[in-house]
Amino acid sequence: MEDWSARQYLKFEDERTRPPRDLLARIPLERPRLVVDLGCGPGNSTELLVARYPQAQVIGLDSSPDMLRKARERLPQHQFVEGDITAWSPAAGTDLLFSNAVMQWLPNHAAVLRRLMEALEPGAALAVQMPDNTREPALVFQGEVGRSGPWADHPEIKAASRDDLPPVEAYYDLLRPVASHIDIWHTMYNHVMASPQAIVEWFKGSSLQPFLSPLDAPAREKFLAAYAEKIAAAYKPRVDGKVLLKFPRLFIVAVR
Amino acid sequence: MEDWSARQYLKFEDERTRPPRDLLARIPLERPRLVVDLGCGPGNSTELLVARYPQAQVIGLDSSPDMLRKARERLPQHQFVEGDITAWSPAAGTDLLFSNAVMQWLPNHAAVLRRLMEALEPGAALAVQMPDNTREPALVFQGEVGRSGPWADHPEIKAASRDDLPPVEAYYDLLRPVASHIDIWHTMYNHVMASPQAIVEWFKGSSLQPFLSPLDAPAREKFLAAYAEKIAAAYKPRVDGKVLLKFPRLFIVAVR
Repeated sequence: MEDWSARQYLKFEDERTRPPRDLLARIPLERPRLVVDLGCGPGNSTELLVARYPQAQVIGLDSSPDMLRKARERLPQHQFVEGDITAWSPAAGTDLLFSNAVMQWLPNHAAVLRRLMEALEPGAALAVQMPDNTREPALVFQGEVGRSGPWADHPEIKAASRDDLPPVEAYYDLLRPVASHIDIWHTMYNHVMASPQAIVEWFKGSSLQPFLSPLDAPAREKFLAAYAEKIAAAYKPRVDGKVLLKFPRLFIVAVR
Repeated sequence: MEDWSARQYLKFEDERTRPPRDLLARIPLERPRLVVDLGCGPGNSTELLVARYPQAQVIGLDSSPDMLRKARERLPQHQFVEGDITAWSPAAGTDLLFSNAVMQWLPNHAAVLRRLMEALEPGAALAVQMPDNTREPALVFQGEVGRSGPWADHPEIKAASRDDLPPVEAYYDLLRPVASHIDIWHTMYNHVMASPQAIVEWFKGSSLQPFLSPLDAPAREKFLAAYAEKIAAAYKPRVDGKVLLKFPRLFIVAVR
Protein backbone atom coordinates (compact mmCIF):
# COMPACT_ATOMS: atom_id res chain seq x y z
CA MET A 1 0.00 0.00 0.00
CA GLU A 2 1.06 3.51 -0.76
CA ASP A 3 -0.87 5.11 2.00
CA TRP A 4 1.85 6.96 3.80
CA SER A 5 3.59 8.55 0.84
CA ALA A 6 0.27 9.44 -0.78
CA ARG A 7 -0.74 11.18 2.44
CA GLN A 8 2.55 13.02 2.64
CA TYR A 9 2.21 14.12 -0.93
CA LEU A 10 -1.31 15.35 -0.47
CA LYS A 11 -0.39 17.11 2.74
CA PHE A 12 2.04 19.27 0.78
CA GLU A 13 -0.35 19.74 -2.08
CA ASP A 14 -0.92 23.45 -1.75
CA GLU A 15 -3.24 24.73 -4.45
CA ARG A 16 -1.46 28.05 -4.66
CA THR A 17 2.04 26.68 -5.15
CA ARG A 18 1.10 24.14 -7.79
CA PRO A 19 1.38 26.56 -10.74
CA PRO A 20 4.95 27.66 -9.88
CA ARG A 21 5.89 24.02 -9.31
CA ASP A 22 4.45 23.08 -12.70
CA LEU A 23 6.39 25.95 -14.26
CA LEU A 24 9.60 24.94 -12.53
CA ALA A 25 9.22 21.36 -13.79
CA ARG A 26 9.43 22.59 -17.39
CA ILE A 27 12.60 24.67 -17.11
CA PRO A 28 15.36 22.97 -19.12
CA LEU A 29 18.23 24.11 -16.86
CA GLU A 30 20.04 21.76 -14.49
CA ARG A 31 22.65 23.97 -12.83
CA PRO A 32 21.93 27.68 -13.29
CA ARG A 33 24.37 30.04 -11.59
CA LEU A 34 22.25 33.10 -10.88
CA VAL A 35 18.47 32.83 -10.58
CA VAL A 36 16.19 35.85 -10.05
CA ASP A 37 12.62 35.54 -8.78
CA LEU A 38 10.90 38.57 -10.29
CA GLY A 39 8.04 39.71 -8.05
CA CYS A 40 8.99 37.26 -5.32
CA GLY A 41 6.28 38.41 -2.89
CA PRO A 42 6.71 36.78 0.53
CA GLY A 43 9.25 34.32 -0.91
CA ASN A 44 7.15 31.19 -1.43
CA SER A 45 8.14 30.90 -5.11
CA THR A 46 11.73 31.76 -4.13
CA GLU A 47 11.67 28.83 -1.74
CA LEU A 48 10.74 26.48 -4.60
CA LEU A 49 13.64 27.84 -6.67
CA VAL A 50 16.08 27.32 -3.80
CA ALA A 51 14.85 23.74 -3.35
CA ARG A 52 15.22 22.91 -7.04
CA TYR A 53 18.55 24.74 -7.49
CA PRO A 54 20.36 24.43 -4.16
CA GLN A 55 23.74 25.29 -5.69
CA ALA A 56 22.53 28.49 -7.39
CA GLN A 57 22.60 32.04 -6.17
CA VAL A 58 18.88 32.86 -5.87
CA ILE A 59 17.79 36.48 -5.55
CA GLY A 60 14.25 37.76 -5.00
CA LEU A 61 13.07 41.09 -6.40
CA ASP A 62 9.89 42.85 -5.34
CA SER A 63 8.56 46.39 -5.16
CA SER A 64 6.94 45.95 -1.74
CA PRO A 65 9.14 46.43 1.38
CA ASP A 66 6.54 44.53 3.39
CA MET A 67 6.73 41.49 1.10
CA LEU A 68 10.52 41.65 1.14
CA ARG A 69 10.60 41.65 4.94
CA LYS A 70 8.48 38.48 4.97
CA ALA A 71 10.66 36.89 2.30
CA ARG A 72 13.85 37.66 4.30
CA GLU A 73 12.29 36.03 7.36
CA ARG A 74 11.46 32.95 5.34
CA LEU A 75 14.84 32.66 3.59
CA PRO A 76 17.42 34.53 5.71
CA GLN A 77 20.33 33.09 3.71
CA HIS A 78 19.15 34.66 0.47
CA GLN A 79 19.27 38.13 -0.98
CA PHE A 80 16.07 40.11 -1.51
CA VAL A 81 16.16 43.36 -3.42
CA GLU A 82 13.62 46.16 -3.66
CA GLY A 83 12.99 47.13 -7.25
CA ASP A 84 10.56 47.67 -10.09
CA ILE A 85 10.56 44.93 -12.74
CA THR A 86 9.81 47.41 -15.51
CA ALA A 87 13.04 49.32 -14.75
CA TRP A 88 15.20 46.30 -13.88
CA SER A 89 17.71 44.41 -16.00
CA PRO A 90 19.49 41.12 -15.31
CA ALA A 91 23.17 41.18 -14.31
CA ALA A 92 25.75 39.29 -16.38
CA GLY A 93 25.69 35.60 -15.56
CA THR A 94 21.96 35.45 -14.91
CA ASP A 95 20.79 32.02 -16.08
CA LEU A 96 17.14 32.11 -15.06
CA LEU A 97 14.44 34.72 -14.69
CA PHE A 98 11.41 33.27 -12.93
CA SER A 99 8.17 35.16 -12.56
CA ASN A 100 5.11 33.62 -10.95
CA ALA A 101 1.70 35.35 -11.07
CA VAL A 102 3.20 38.84 -11.30
CA MET A 103 3.62 39.97 -14.89
CA GLN A 104 -0.14 40.28 -15.48
CA TRP A 105 -0.14 43.32 -13.18
CA LEU A 106 2.41 45.28 -15.23
CA PRO A 107 1.21 47.73 -17.88
CA ASN A 108 2.40 46.36 -21.23
CA HIS A 109 3.96 43.28 -19.69
CA ALA A 110 4.54 41.78 -23.15
CA ALA A 111 7.11 44.49 -23.93
CA VAL A 112 8.73 43.87 -20.54
CA LEU A 113 9.08 40.16 -21.33
CA ARG A 114 10.66 40.91 -24.69
CA ARG A 115 13.13 43.36 -23.13
CA LEU A 116 14.11 40.88 -20.40
CA MET A 117 14.62 38.11 -22.98
CA GLU A 118 16.84 40.39 -25.04
CA ALA A 119 18.94 41.14 -21.96
CA LEU A 120 19.67 37.45 -21.29
CA GLU A 121 22.77 35.60 -22.43
CA PRO A 122 22.45 32.64 -24.85
CA GLY A 123 21.19 29.55 -23.03
CA ALA A 124 19.60 31.50 -20.19
CA ALA A 125 15.86 31.12 -19.67
CA LEU A 126 12.76 33.15 -18.89
CA ALA A 127 9.94 31.28 -17.13
CA VAL A 128 6.62 33.02 -16.58
CA GLN A 129 3.22 32.05 -15.20
CA MET A 130 0.20 34.34 -15.29
CA PRO A 131 -3.46 33.78 -14.38
CA ASP A 132 -5.52 33.86 -17.58
CA ASN A 133 -8.89 33.84 -15.89
CA THR A 134 -10.44 37.18 -16.86
CA ARG A 135 -13.27 35.37 -18.68
CA GLU A 136 -14.07 33.08 -15.77
CA PRO A 137 -17.29 33.85 -13.83
CA ALA A 138 -15.33 34.60 -10.65
CA LEU A 139 -13.47 37.44 -12.42
CA VAL A 140 -16.34 38.65 -14.59
CA PHE A 141 -18.45 39.09 -11.42
CA GLN A 142 -15.80 41.37 -9.91
CA GLY A 143 -16.23 43.78 -12.81
CA GLU A 144 -20.02 43.46 -12.69
CA VAL A 145 -20.17 44.33 -9.00
CA GLY A 146 -17.66 47.13 -9.59
CA ARG A 147 -19.92 48.68 -12.24
CA SER A 148 -23.20 48.31 -10.39
CA GLY A 149 -22.76 49.65 -6.84
CA PRO A 150 -22.49 53.15 -5.31
CA TRP A 151 -18.73 52.87 -6.04
CA ALA A 152 -19.28 52.58 -9.80
CA ASP A 153 -17.80 55.99 -10.62
CA HIS A 154 -14.70 55.65 -8.45
CA PRO A 155 -11.77 55.96 -10.88
CA GLU A 156 -9.69 53.25 -9.15
CA ILE A 157 -12.59 50.81 -9.28
CA LYS A 158 -13.27 51.66 -12.91
CA ALA A 159 -9.66 50.68 -13.62
CA ALA A 160 -9.59 47.65 -11.33
CA SER A 161 -10.45 44.90 -13.85
CA ARG A 162 -7.42 43.31 -15.46
CA ASP A 163 -7.31 43.21 -19.26
CA ASP A 164 -7.48 39.85 -20.99
CA LEU A 165 -4.07 38.39 -21.72
CA PRO A 166 -3.00 38.43 -25.38
CA PRO A 167 -3.41 35.11 -27.24
CA VAL A 168 -0.65 32.49 -27.27
CA GLU A 169 0.24 33.44 -30.86
CA ALA A 170 1.07 37.01 -29.79
CA TYR A 171 3.56 35.83 -27.14
CA TYR A 172 5.05 33.37 -29.61
CA ASP A 173 5.58 35.99 -32.32
CA LEU A 174 6.99 38.44 -29.78
CA LEU A 175 9.49 36.12 -28.10
CA ARG A 176 10.39 33.63 -30.83
CA PRO A 177 12.81 36.02 -32.63
CA VAL A 178 14.92 36.24 -29.45
CA ALA A 179 14.51 32.62 -28.29
CA SER A 180 16.27 29.43 -29.32
CA HIS A 181 13.42 27.44 -27.77
CA ILE A 182 9.96 28.45 -26.69
CA ASP A 183 7.11 26.56 -25.08
CA ILE A 184 3.75 28.17 -24.27
CA TRP A 185 0.82 26.35 -22.73
CA HIS A 186 -2.25 26.78 -20.57
CA THR A 187 -3.30 24.64 -17.66
CA MET A 188 -6.85 24.88 -16.38
CA TYR A 189 -6.83 23.75 -12.77
CA ASN A 190 -10.00 22.80 -10.93
CA HIS A 191 -9.36 23.73 -7.33
CA VAL A 192 -11.60 21.86 -4.92
CA MET A 193 -12.96 24.54 -2.58
CA ALA A 194 -14.89 23.94 0.63
CA SER A 195 -17.69 26.37 -0.29
CA PRO A 196 -18.56 29.31 -2.57
CA GLN A 197 -17.38 31.56 0.30
CA ALA A 198 -13.93 29.97 0.03
CA ILE A 199 -13.78 31.26 -3.56
CA VAL A 200 -14.49 34.76 -2.25
CA GLU A 201 -11.70 34.35 0.29
CA TRP A 202 -9.30 33.12 -2.40
CA PHE A 203 -9.77 36.23 -4.54
CA LYS A 204 -9.66 38.63 -1.59
CA GLY A 205 -5.94 37.89 -1.62
CA SER A 206 -5.50 38.63 -5.32
CA SER A 207 -7.76 40.07 -8.03
CA LEU A 208 -10.32 41.58 -5.60
CA GLN A 209 -7.62 43.77 -4.04
CA PRO A 210 -7.88 46.66 -6.54
CA PHE A 211 -11.66 46.72 -6.04
CA LEU A 212 -11.55 46.60 -2.26
CA SER A 213 -8.62 48.84 -1.40
CA PRO A 214 -10.30 52.13 -2.48
CA LEU A 215 -13.37 51.36 -0.32
CA ASP A 216 -14.07 52.01 3.34
CA ALA A 217 -15.04 49.10 5.59
CA PRO A 218 -18.85 49.27 5.17
CA ALA A 219 -18.59 49.63 1.38
CA ARG A 220 -16.15 46.71 1.30
CA GLU A 221 -18.63 44.55 3.11
CA LYS A 222 -21.40 45.51 0.70
CA PHE A 223 -19.12 44.80 -2.25
CA LEU A 224 -18.18 41.39 -0.89
CA ALA A 225 -21.78 40.48 -0.11
CA ALA A 226 -22.88 41.30 -3.67
CA TYR A 227 -19.92 39.34 -5.05
CA ALA A 228 -20.54 36.34 -2.75
CA GLU A 229 -24.14 36.17 -3.93
CA LYS A 230 -23.10 35.94 -7.57
CA ILE A 231 -20.43 33.37 -6.76
CA ALA A 232 -22.90 31.17 -4.85
CA ALA A 233 -25.32 31.29 -7.79
CA ALA A 234 -22.68 30.25 -10.33
CA TYR A 235 -20.46 27.78 -8.45
CA LYS A 236 -22.80 24.96 -7.52
CA PRO A 237 -21.90 22.26 -5.01
CA ARG A 238 -20.69 18.96 -6.43
CA VAL A 239 -21.62 15.50 -5.21
CA ASP A 240 -19.55 15.94 -2.02
CA GLY A 241 -20.76 19.48 -1.28
CA LYS A 242 -17.47 21.04 -2.48
CA VAL A 243 -17.25 23.54 -5.33
CA LEU A 244 -14.78 23.48 -8.21
CA LEU A 245 -12.92 26.68 -8.99
CA LYS A 246 -11.77 26.45 -12.59
CA PHE A 247 -8.57 28.47 -12.95
CA PRO A 248 -6.83 28.83 -16.33
CA ARG A 249 -3.19 29.90 -16.25
CA LEU A 250 -0.72 30.75 -19.00
CA PHE A 251 2.85 29.42 -18.90
CA ILE A 252 5.82 30.53 -20.97
CA VAL A 253 9.29 28.97 -20.93
CA ALA A 254 11.70 30.62 -23.36
CA VAL A 255 15.44 29.97 -23.75
CA ARG A 256 17.57 32.80 -25.19
CA MET B 1 26.03 28.24 -19.37
CA GLU B 2 23.44 25.55 -19.49
CA ASP B 3 23.89 24.75 -23.11
CA TRP B 4 24.56 21.06 -22.92
CA SER B 5 21.84 20.05 -20.52
CA ALA B 6 19.31 22.31 -22.23
CA ARG B 7 20.18 20.63 -25.54
CA GLN B 8 19.86 17.20 -23.99
CA TYR B 9 16.54 18.11 -22.51
CA LEU B 10 15.21 19.52 -25.73
CA LYS B 11 16.50 16.53 -27.68
CA PHE B 12 14.24 14.31 -25.59
CA GLU B 13 11.36 16.69 -25.73
CA ASP B 14 9.01 14.57 -27.75
CA GLU B 15 5.68 16.30 -28.27
CA ARG B 16 3.77 13.04 -28.14
CA THR B 17 5.20 11.78 -24.86
CA ARG B 18 4.79 15.03 -22.98
CA PRO B 19 1.18 14.40 -21.91
CA PRO B 20 1.93 10.98 -20.33
CA ARG B 21 5.00 12.49 -18.65
CA ASP B 22 2.88 15.31 -17.26
CA LEU B 23 0.34 12.77 -16.04
CA LEU B 24 3.03 10.63 -14.45
CA ALA B 25 4.43 13.65 -12.61
CA ARG B 26 1.13 14.08 -10.74
CA ILE B 27 0.72 10.52 -9.48
CA PRO B 28 1.12 10.51 -5.67
CA LEU B 29 2.65 7.03 -5.44
CA GLU B 30 6.32 6.43 -4.72
CA ARG B 31 6.66 2.64 -4.73
CA PRO B 32 3.68 0.93 -6.36
CA ARG B 33 3.90 -2.85 -6.55
CA LEU B 34 1.84 -3.70 -9.63
CA VAL B 35 1.30 -1.12 -12.37
CA VAL B 36 -0.90 -1.73 -15.43
CA ASP B 37 -0.67 0.37 -18.58
CA LEU B 38 -4.19 0.14 -20.02
CA GLY B 39 -4.06 0.46 -23.83
CA CYS B 40 -0.27 0.39 -23.88
CA GLY B 41 0.00 0.55 -27.70
CA PRO B 42 3.61 0.00 -28.83
CA GLY B 43 4.86 0.44 -25.26
CA ASN B 44 6.05 4.05 -25.23
CA SER B 45 3.91 4.97 -22.22
CA THR B 46 4.91 1.65 -20.59
CA GLU B 47 8.53 2.69 -20.98
CA LEU B 48 7.85 5.88 -19.03
CA LEU B 49 6.20 3.86 -16.25
CA VAL B 50 9.17 1.48 -16.08
CA ALA B 51 11.57 4.43 -15.85
CA ARG B 52 9.61 6.11 -13.06
CA TYR B 53 8.91 2.87 -11.14
CA PRO B 54 11.90 0.61 -11.76
CA GLN B 55 11.07 -1.62 -8.76
CA ALA B 56 7.44 -2.23 -9.80
CA GLN B 57 5.95 -5.03 -11.83
CA VAL B 58 4.71 -3.19 -14.92
CA ILE B 59 2.25 -4.89 -17.26
CA GLY B 60 0.92 -3.57 -20.57
CA LEU B 61 -2.58 -4.39 -21.79
CA ASP B 62 -3.79 -3.80 -25.34
CA SER B 63 -6.35 -5.25 -27.73
CA SER B 64 -4.04 -5.19 -30.77
CA PRO B 65 -1.64 -8.13 -31.28
CA ASP B 66 0.42 -5.93 -33.60
CA MET B 67 0.89 -3.24 -30.95
CA LEU B 68 1.73 -5.88 -28.35
CA ARG B 69 4.43 -7.37 -30.60
CA LYS B 70 6.04 -3.94 -30.91
CA ALA B 71 5.75 -3.37 -27.17
CA ARG B 72 7.44 -6.71 -26.42
CA GLU B 73 10.29 -5.80 -28.75
CA ARG B 74 10.73 -2.49 -26.94
CA LEU B 75 10.53 -3.91 -23.42
CA PRO B 76 11.39 -7.63 -23.58
CA GLN B 77 11.66 -7.90 -19.79
CA HIS B 78 8.05 -6.90 -19.23
CA GLN B 79 4.74 -8.65 -19.60
CA PHE B 80 2.25 -7.60 -22.28
CA VAL B 81 -1.24 -9.03 -22.29
CA GLU B 82 -3.91 -9.04 -24.98
CA GLY B 83 -7.22 -7.89 -23.61
CA ASP B 84 -10.18 -5.54 -23.82
CA ILE B 85 -10.23 -2.80 -21.18
CA THR B 86 -14.02 -2.85 -20.99
CA ALA B 87 -13.95 -6.50 -19.89
CA TRP B 88 -10.81 -6.35 -17.76
CA SER B 89 -10.43 -6.01 -14.00
CA PRO B 90 -7.32 -5.34 -11.92
CA ALA B 91 -5.73 -8.21 -9.95
CA ALA B 92 -5.31 -7.95 -6.19
CA GLY B 93 -2.27 -5.84 -5.31
CA THR B 94 -2.63 -3.49 -8.28
CA ASP B 95 -1.45 -0.06 -7.11
CA LEU B 96 -1.70 1.94 -10.31
CA LEU B 97 -3.85 1.91 -13.44
CA PHE B 98 -2.38 4.21 -16.07
CA SER B 99 -4.17 5.02 -19.30
CA ASN B 100 -2.76 7.44 -21.83
CA ALA B 101 -4.84 8.64 -24.82
CA VAL B 102 -6.95 5.50 -24.94
CA MET B 103 -10.13 5.84 -22.89
CA GLN B 104 -11.68 8.37 -25.31
CA TRP B 105 -12.09 5.56 -27.85
CA LEU B 106 -14.20 3.37 -25.55
CA PRO B 107 -18.00 3.58 -25.71
CA ASN B 108 -19.15 4.95 -22.34
CA HIS B 109 -15.62 5.30 -21.00
CA ALA B 110 -16.92 7.18 -17.95
CA ALA B 111 -18.65 4.02 -16.69
CA VAL B 112 -15.46 2.06 -17.36
CA LEU B 113 -13.45 4.52 -15.24
CA ARG B 114 -15.92 4.22 -12.40
CA ARG B 115 -15.86 0.41 -12.52
CA LEU B 116 -12.05 0.34 -12.55
CA MET B 117 -11.88 2.75 -9.58
CA GLU B 118 -14.32 0.57 -7.63
CA ALA B 119 -12.15 -2.47 -8.31
CA LEU B 120 -9.02 -0.84 -6.81
CA GLU B 121 -7.84 -1.29 -3.23
CA PRO B 122 -7.63 1.73 -0.88
CA GLY B 123 -4.59 3.88 -1.69
CA ALA B 124 -4.30 2.61 -5.27
CA ALA B 125 -4.59 5.16 -8.07
CA LEU B 126 -6.16 5.61 -11.47
CA ALA B 127 -4.36 8.03 -13.83
CA VAL B 128 -5.95 8.93 -17.14
CA GLN B 129 -5.17 11.31 -19.99
CA MET B 130 -7.50 11.89 -22.94
CA PRO B 131 -7.39 14.35 -25.85
CA ASP B 132 -10.20 16.88 -25.40
CA ASN B 133 -9.84 18.51 -28.79
CA THR B 134 -13.13 17.75 -30.54
CA ARG B 135 -13.90 21.50 -30.75
CA GLU B 136 -10.51 22.40 -32.20
CA PRO B 137 -10.46 23.31 -35.92
CA ALA B 138 -8.24 20.32 -36.75
CA LEU B 139 -10.91 17.94 -35.45
CA VAL B 140 -13.96 19.89 -36.61
CA PHE B 141 -12.54 19.82 -40.18
CA GLN B 142 -12.35 16.02 -40.07
CA GLY B 143 -16.11 15.84 -39.53
CA GLU B 144 -16.74 18.53 -42.16
CA VAL B 145 -14.77 16.68 -44.82
CA GLY B 146 -16.42 13.43 -43.76
CA ARG B 147 -19.88 14.94 -44.33
CA SER B 148 -19.13 16.67 -47.62
CA GLY B 149 -17.43 14.16 -49.95
CA PRO B 150 -18.62 11.17 -51.98
CA TRP B 151 -18.01 9.10 -48.80
CA ALA B 152 -20.60 11.08 -46.80
CA ASP B 153 -23.09 8.21 -46.56
CA HIS B 154 -20.57 5.54 -45.55
CA PRO B 155 -21.77 4.31 -42.14
CA GLU B 156 -18.23 4.01 -40.72
CA ILE B 157 -17.41 7.57 -41.75
CA LYS B 158 -20.69 8.86 -40.35
CA ALA B 159 -19.65 7.32 -37.02
CA ALA B 160 -15.99 8.39 -37.23
CA SER B 161 -16.15 11.67 -35.29
CA ARG B 162 -15.47 11.28 -31.58
CA ASP B 163 -18.06 12.69 -29.18
CA ASP B 164 -17.07 15.62 -26.97
CA LEU B 165 -15.78 14.55 -23.58
CA PRO B 166 -18.13 15.20 -20.65
CA PRO B 167 -17.32 18.29 -18.55
CA VAL B 168 -14.91 18.16 -15.61
CA GLU B 169 -17.84 18.30 -13.17
CA ALA B 170 -19.27 15.05 -14.56
CA TYR B 171 -16.01 13.16 -13.98
CA TYR B 172 -15.74 14.67 -10.52
CA ASP B 173 -19.26 13.65 -9.49
CA LEU B 174 -18.77 10.18 -10.97
CA LEU B 175 -15.42 9.38 -9.34
CA ARG B 176 -15.48 11.40 -6.12
CA PRO B 177 -17.72 8.93 -4.23
CA VAL B 178 -15.13 6.18 -4.76
CA ALA B 179 -11.99 8.35 -4.39
CA SER B 180 -10.15 9.61 -1.32
CA HIS B 181 -8.42 12.21 -3.50
CA ILE B 182 -9.20 13.45 -6.99
CA ASP B 183 -7.49 15.96 -9.23
CA ILE B 184 -8.84 16.86 -12.69
CA TRP B 185 -7.26 19.43 -15.00
CA HIS B 186 -6.78 20.38 -18.62
CA THR B 187 -3.57 21.35 -20.31
CA MET B 188 -3.69 23.08 -23.67
CA TYR B 189 -0.40 22.43 -25.39
CA ASN B 190 0.73 24.47 -28.38
CA HIS B 191 2.82 22.10 -30.46
CA VAL B 192 5.22 23.89 -32.79
CA MET B 193 4.73 22.19 -36.16
CA ALA B 194 6.93 22.64 -39.23
CA SER B 195 3.96 23.29 -41.54
CA PRO B 196 0.18 22.83 -41.90
CA GLN B 197 0.98 19.54 -43.64
CA ALA B 198 2.71 18.36 -40.46
CA ILE B 199 -0.64 18.78 -38.68
CA VAL B 200 -2.24 16.51 -41.27
CA GLU B 201 0.53 13.95 -40.70
CA TRP B 202 0.04 14.17 -36.93
CA PHE B 203 -3.66 13.29 -37.14
CA LYS B 204 -3.14 10.56 -39.75
CA GLY B 205 -1.75 8.59 -36.83
CA SER B 206 -4.74 9.20 -34.57
CA SER B 207 -8.17 10.79 -35.07
CA LEU B 208 -8.11 10.61 -38.91
CA GLN B 209 -7.80 6.83 -38.77
CA PRO B 210 -11.55 6.06 -38.52
CA PHE B 211 -12.17 8.36 -41.52
CA LEU B 212 -9.40 6.93 -43.68
CA SER B 213 -9.57 3.23 -42.96
CA PRO B 214 -12.94 2.62 -44.72
CA LEU B 215 -11.67 4.36 -47.91
CA ASP B 216 -9.69 3.02 -50.86
CA ALA B 217 -6.41 4.69 -51.79
CA PRO B 218 -7.75 7.28 -54.30
CA ALA B 219 -10.58 8.31 -51.96
CA ARG B 220 -8.11 8.60 -49.09
CA GLU B 221 -5.99 10.96 -51.13
CA LYS B 222 -9.02 13.08 -51.98
CA PHE B 223 -10.06 13.14 -48.32
CA LEU B 224 -6.60 14.18 -47.18
CA ALA B 225 -6.32 16.88 -49.87
CA ALA B 226 -9.65 18.42 -48.80
CA TYR B 227 -8.57 18.22 -45.14
CA ALA B 228 -5.13 19.71 -45.83
CA GLU B 229 -6.72 22.66 -47.60
CA LYS B 230 -8.86 23.49 -44.58
CA ILE B 231 -5.92 23.06 -42.22
CA ALA B 232 -3.73 25.39 -44.28
CA ALA B 233 -6.46 28.05 -44.26
CA ALA B 234 -6.91 27.91 -40.49
CA TYR B 235 -3.40 27.31 -39.12
CA LYS B 236 -1.44 30.33 -40.28
CA PRO B 237 2.36 30.53 -40.14
CA ARG B 238 3.85 32.37 -37.19
CA VAL B 239 6.81 34.77 -37.28
CA ASP B 240 9.25 31.89 -37.88
CA GLY B 241 7.12 30.13 -40.52
CA LYS B 242 6.02 27.40 -38.08
CA VAL B 243 2.41 26.73 -37.14
CA LEU B 244 1.02 26.19 -33.64
CA LEU B 245 -1.20 23.18 -33.07
CA LYS B 246 -3.28 23.92 -29.99
CA PHE B 247 -4.10 20.63 -28.30
CA PRO B 248 -6.29 20.51 -25.16
CA ARG B 249 -6.05 17.37 -23.06
CA LEU B 250 -7.94 16.21 -19.98
CA PHE B 251 -6.11 14.65 -17.04
CA ILE B 252 -7.58 12.72 -14.12
CA VAL B 253 -5.67 11.39 -11.11
CA ALA B 254 -7.89 9.65 -8.58
CA VAL B 255 -6.81 7.72 -5.47
CA ARG B 256 -9.17 5.02 -4.16
